[in-house]
Amino acid sequence: MVRVGIINVTGYAGAELARLLYVHPEARLTGVSGRSAAGKPLAEVFPHLACYDLTIGEEVGEVDFVFSALPHAASAEAVAPLVRAGVPVVDISADFRLRDPQEYAQWYGVEHPAPELLARAVYGLTELNREAVRTSRLIANPGCYPESALLALAPAVQEGVIGPDVIIDSKSGVSGAGRALGLTFHFAEADESVSAYGLAGHRHLPEMVQELEAMWPVGEAPEAPRPKVTFTPHLIPMTRGILSTCYAPLGQGTVRSGEEARELYREFYRGESFVRVVDSPPATKQVSGSNMCLVHPTVDARTERLVVVSVIDNLVKGAAGQAIQNMNAMLGLPETTGLEAPAIYP
Amino acid sequence: MVRVGIINVTGYAGAELARLLYVHPEARLTGVSGRSAAGKPLAEVFPHLACYDLTIGEEVGEVDFVFSALPHAASAEAVAPLVRAGVPVVDISADFRLRDPQEYAQWYGVEHPAPELLARAVYGLTELNREAVRTSRLIANPGCYPESALLALAPAVQEGVIGPDVIIDSKSGVSGAGRALGLTFHFAEADESVSAYGLAGHRHLPEMVQELEAMWPVGEAPEAPRPKVTFTPHLIPMTRGILSTCYAPLGQGTVRSGEEARELYREFYRGESFVRVVDSPPATKQVSGSNMCLVHPTVDARTERLVVVSVIDNLVKGAAGQAIQNMNAMLGLPETTGLEAPAIYP
Amino acid sequence: MVRVGIINVTGYAGAELARLLYVHPEARLTGVSGRSAAGKPLAEVFPHLACYDLTIGEEVGEVDFVFSALPHAASAEAVAPLVRAGVPVVDISADFRLRDPQEYAQWYGVEHPAPELLARAVYGLTELNREAVRTSRLIANPGCYPESALLALAPAVQEGVIGPDVIIDSKSGVSGAGRALGLTFHFAEADESVSAYGLAGHRHLPEMVQELEAMWPVGEAPEAPRPKVTFTPHLIPMTRGILSTCYAPLGQGTVRSGEEARELYREFYRGESFVRVVDSPPATKQVSGSNMCLVHPTVDARTERLVVVSVIDNLVKGAAGQAIQNMNAMLGLPETTGLEAPAIYP
Amino acid sequence: MVRVGIINVTGYAGAELARLLYVHPEARLTGVSGRSAAGKPLAEVFPHLACYDLTIGEEVGEVDFVFSALPHAASAEAVAPLVRAGVPVVDISADFRLRDPQEYAQWYGVEHPAPELLARAVYGLTELNREAVRTSRLIANPGCYPESALLALAPAVQEGVIGPDVIIDSKSGVSGAGRALGLTFHFAEADESVSAYGLAGHRHLPEMVQELEAMWPVGEAPEAPRPKVTFTPHLIPMTRGILSTCYAPLGQGTVRSGEEARELYREFYRGESFVRVVDSPPATKQVSGSNMCLVHPTVDARTERLVVVSVIDNLVKGAAGQAIQNMNAMLGLPETTGLEAPAIYP
Repeated sequence: MVRVGIINVTGYAGAELARLLYVHPEARLTGVSGRSAAGKPLAEVFPHLACYDLTIGEEVGEVDFVFSALPHAASAEAVAPLVRAGVPVVDISADFRLRDPQEYAQWYGVEHPAPELLARAVYGLTELNREAVRTSRLIANPGCYPESALLALAPAVQEGVIGPDVIIDSKSGVSGAGRALGLTFHFAEADESVSAYGLAGHRHLPEMVQELEAMWPVGEAPEAPRPKVTFTPHLIPMTRGILSTCYAPLGQGTVRSGEEARELYREFYRGESFVRVVDSPPATKQVSGSNMCLVHPTVDARTERLVVVSVIDNLVKGAAGQAIQNMNAMLGLPETTGLEAPAIYP
Repeated sequence: MVRVGIINVTGYAGAELARLLYVHPEARLTGVSGRSAAGKPLAEVFPHLACYDLTIGEEVGEVDFVFSALPHAASAEAVAPLVRAGVPVVDISADFRLRDPQEYAQWYGVEHPAPELLARAVYGLTELNREAVRTSRLIANPGCYPESALLALAPAVQEGVIGPDVIIDSKSGVSGAGRALGLTFHFAEADESVSAYGLAGHRHLPEMVQELEAMWPVGEAPEAPRPKVTFTPHLIPMTRGILSTCYAPLGQGTVRSGEEARELYREFYRGESFVRVVDSPPATKQVSGSNMCLVHPTVDARTERLVVVSVIDNLVKGAAGQAIQNMNAMLGLPETTGLEAPAIYP
Repeated sequence: MVRVGIINVTGYAGAELARLLYVHPEARLTGVSGRSAAGKPLAEVFPHLACYDLTIGEEVGEVDFVFSALPHAASAEAVAPLVRAGVPVVDISADFRLRDPQEYAQWYGVEHPAPELLARAVYGLTELNREAVRTSRLIANPGCYPESALLALAPAVQEGVIGPDVIIDSKSGVSGAGRALGLTFHFAEADESVSAYGLAGHRHLPEMVQELEAMWPVGEAPEAPRPKVTFTPHLIPMTRGILSTCYAPLGQGTVRSGEEARELYREFYRGESFVRVVDSPPATKQVSGSNMCLVHPTVDARTERLVVVSVIDNLVKGAAGQAIQNMNAMLGLPETTGLEAPAIYP
Repeated sequence: MVRVGIINVTGYAGAELARLLYVHPEARLTGVSGRSAAGKPLAEVFPHLACYDLTIGEEVGEVDFVFSALPHAASAEAVAPLVRAGVPVVDISADFRLRDPQEYAQWYGVEHPAPELLARAVYGLTELNREAVRTSRLIANPGCYPESALLALAPAVQEGVIGPDVIIDSKSGVSGAGRALGLTFHFAEADESVSAYGLAGHRHLPEMVQELEAMWPVGEAPEAPRPKVTFTPHLIPMTRGILSTCYAPLGQGTVRSGEEARELYREFYRGESFVRVVDSPPATKQVSGSNMCLVHPTVDARTERLVVVSVIDNLVKGAAGQAIQNMNAMLGLPETTGLEAPAIYP
């Protein structure tokens, strides 16, 4: 039984890790930390976790595996000594996602606290990066938006189906904004309303661009086109879920219809437990509470565009579930271990 | 491994049974029926159940245990032959809840289809009726409102704490109305609105009265007071959850404060896995997706009234979870088997 | 044209006053204050009020009529000099609702800042207090819960229909908690959840008791029974609306059925523009954005209880609309002036 | 006082017309029809319209102006004789929006019932078509999605700012689907969920394309590029509101930044009462219940794309409010008459 610690259990991603780990047959949550709530029983901060007899501490204590759910910068600082000590870590923060520390500094507004660890970090989108994940000791768990967009676009990109003009229009439930208070997330303001945000550039954009560029097929021409990505996140009056609608022009490839697109996607995701290609547009409710991603690629024949819709639960496949999937891969367990529960519906 | 069948899987209670059974280590769902959808894959009707490779049939086939999620009257007709054949059955419909077939006819508007089975049926509120449940082959699973109200009131009633003037004011999410369409449950009508209904008498009222009367302490006087129960259900703009607020005058007993009430309730529910007495008012979200019932008894000292608030997930503790808890008890399994997952929060 | 000022326009009640006054044909909003936002255009704080070309000031300037939407204590301090100077004031805070300054101190935790003005203040539930409102210069606008409960109970109380055991179970949208942030009102926490609060005693309780006692018929016996009121507010996942379900035992009177109750209520509210007695249970959505109160009295014949359901929009009839109705009465205008718009539905 | 009739008042658009007309100083609703509810008081079908003393009839009777809120095909049949008789009509259905009856037949699956009237019909997006609206007797009121998208794109298109690759990603509240029941709009299914639909081609697409093509600048080249429009609507768990996010590549023009775009848009909409160009991303809640459209154009400098976000209330600016604005223009009244009320917020 692997002893697991969660650094900063007091946010939604941390609590979600604890929820999911409770039914994990090979891992046991033995330590949780969270500075503001240190000394309180976990059950007091989160009544739904009263199944645990744990007290929130300053540190997670001696554990075999660590998840960090700290905010960026604080997370790298906290996990750096653990990584150096050889403890396997999945970092849910953004700290090890961008490979370039300058880009990190530019988007996050601080110097990277541990740039020397960046080379060791693996981007933990397991489906696209499985081998590297398995042998890594430091996983950068993907952002929730990149998770949904990359799973929606990877088959088309890697198979050379689309041109570089990519638009990602994402719709997220409010839990994605976390547990910190703000007028935008005040019930009376967020309820019965939709809004766009991050139009000047959301921090998940460089992460998407980095990963899309890395998987973009290298053309014969010396200057192959690089993807030009516009990303617009929207706040939706619901708690959980992300739906991303992704648009790109069809290239010269053979995919000209939705059926052909879905066939290609099915082939690409063959054998995956957590990605399902579906024949009709999915709803976020169909994955609520689960680690599933449903992907529905289609073609707008009038304009020769690929349109892909994907749905995930932002706190599971977009955070805690993906993190546990990574842990499973790192530990040599079946990736589905502890993540088998179907979505809660309705 | 017990082979389980669900009759009428196509409603919300049926689907919820399938969801919960998927992670049950001792039971295996092998047959699902549902007339309108017969012939369709379960995964087509409920995409969140794509983990199952089952087709909805006319019948559930050969199974060791049956849940019926049919509407009333249809359910008794369907399970009667099974019961006679010795198959253990948990009936989620109302058909075997009322012991008096005349009362059944009066409230449900039809003659009871199998009145001779009523004597065999056990009211499946496991916490209050454990021994009878264990040895029964036909369980009447409680209605969602009675479940929440009886768990809230049982300790006070059985310990003689309250007088007979009982008011139960319940607030339910819309999934309680089922999957059948109606203008009242049309999103644009139900959203951002609260309403009361059933003021002329809700079908869950006689069920509550029957069970409260059965547990009411017999006084010395030849004509002990019987409970006078008013019950008002309300429709709340959310999908899952019931909160019941129960009011009754304090009797001559020793409970005069909230602390004393909670102490008495804790004693009453000592050892129960699915009922937790809490020190502050609970929220339905704290039990969403789980089989927990949180109970918060308090005292309005100004008016000498007991006020008890309880919360459940109407589809779990109020239906499918309670049904599986009953199955576990009937099979001699720990009652928590397959029901360990914490609530989904937020 | 009456020049109107709103003190503390930056909360929901203040903003709602501004919204409603915009279409008032006899009043013109000329000054708005709000300390934290002083200097900002009103349209910046509230984009829906961009129709106004007003800047939020430290003071409301020279006006003929003042609404105060300040928190309690601060409100009495702010309006006291205005009242003394003869400016007519409707105070939306709680400061002038309780006639007894000791009770005020006990419930609000501060000494009353202007107890000498209490005798001048009139409780502004216009329908029940019309003559006094018309001649007053200082109106204590009712709390949102008392508004809904008193309109539901007044006919039964004044006509001697009910006994003193009164239970008021209220369900409120989240806007009732105001614009100040709190975890309870964070979208991800409040969404899809119901909870009770204020079980130890909500500040609107003494207000209800005071008004109910004042209207309770004086019996012949020297010690007539006083109402024993239990009040439980609940937080509902919607923005606007309050539904109150009120319970009381029928007395010896002639009302024995819902029809008789509705007849009595219709007679009581004959000629009222903003209270409508309805034959089926109302929904809060039916009054959203409007100054209407719908009341549905019924009788639980089994238990001989009166059950009355009322609905209002907490920000309109429960605050700003009631305040303008009071202003109209004070100014000798028809009470409906500027308040004619139907509810927004759906 | 203009006597107004609403054909088919029983849907949401019809009811919204009645709501708004109640406060219109120059029009008076004198007749309402609706086959299924004929004979019922309007107040019974819509309690929020109890202010009207009208009975729903088979016909609207003798009126000076007619709104039709019938479904397509039925609407053209119903209004054709009125139009021929010279009664001014605003048709809220889709029947007179597409100028080409073949295209109508293709998208709506029926032959156009009155193709000879198409030449008389004017597309009633008042801001873009004011002169034609004023002199017309038959207005095709725009679809809700086209309304939001065309107001978002018109300035950029007409000023030659963008290239032809247009993507419109729209998010709509559920009331847009109307009052007819469907599992997709069942509360428990639509709540807490987002989904895309109409991916194979939504009926509002040809309407958008027709209007965008009509306003597209004619280039010097003989074969000027035509807009290539992809449109994806999404269902959002709220009742009212549409937010459209529109994407197009910047052309060779001078607009290279969000500021420049907003300046151009402000110039374009100068003097408009119902379109406001805003400096930060708007929320649908800011226009709820009102006839306002807020537009926020911005530039993604990295990819040289224009991104425009617009918000409307789908039942007001997207239906009934726009229809009354058209009526006002046709009658020579100020367009704002009866539409002055600010949005309801929160």
